[in-house]
Amino acid sequence: MAASAVTEVHSETRATEEGAVAGRSECCQLYHRAVELVGKRWTGAILLVLLDGPLRFSEIRHLVPDLSDRLLSERLKELEAEHIVEQRVLDGSPVRVEYALTSKGMALEPAVRALKAWAKNWLGD
Amino acid sequence: MAASAVTEVHSETRATEEGAVAGRSECCQLYHRAVELVGKRWTGAILLVLLDGPLRFSEIRHLVPDLSDRLLSERLKELEAEHIVEQRVLDGSPVRVEYALTSKGMALEPAVRALKAWAKNWLGD
Repeated sequence: MAASAVTEVHSETRATEEGAVAGRSECCQLYHRAVELVGKRWTGAILLVLLDGPLRFSEIRHLVPDLSDRLLSERLKELEAEHIVEQRVLDGSPVRVEYALTSKGMALEPAVRALKAWAKNWLGD
Repeated sequence: MAASAVTEVHSETRATEEGAVAGRSECCQLYHRAVELVGKRWTGAILLVLLDGPLRFSEIRHLVPDLSDRLLSERLKELEAEHIVEQRVLDGSPVRVEYALTSKGMALEPAVRALKAWAKNWLGD
């Protein structure tokens, strides 16, 4: 029953829907790009742990279980290319590097916090 | 320089980081699952257009350009399995089906809106 109904909807003409969805904007390209960027596997987790302040590579690894060195390197490079994360080289011997959110990265905080709250409320027991 | 610094960080012992990240919680599993769920290709776009109210299959297709019938079917099934979207069969001849966000789906609104605002502010020109 449900299957045939769906088939019916698939095959109907576009004439009526043009009217029905008039005034509703298409999904914006920028939002779509944001979802693809932030929703990429591990990226959301990396952003979450960096919201509390800069971390060294090994510290991120420690806070995001199951994330490999290779994937973390890859994700950090992507986030640096998008100017969401920046690498900071700290003076001293041995030299140390840490990763910090830029202003653009920090601006993701409301979205990340809201999703975290949703997860706690709706995906828990 | 940056490369060698990163190598140094990779190879340092875990002893110091245990102290440095003490008190900072690990990325929570529920949040990670939420990112994987909502961040999946096209899922964010489908949620965005459904926030304004129920839509038929062909209407979603119309509002999310470049999304194929096959992928939309797949994503809707996944969202139904997670109880984020529900299918409603409307009386009448021919029978009509529409897709609506459940309470769990509507609860994603703050996260979706926040991400959309970020995209507009930071990914635009």
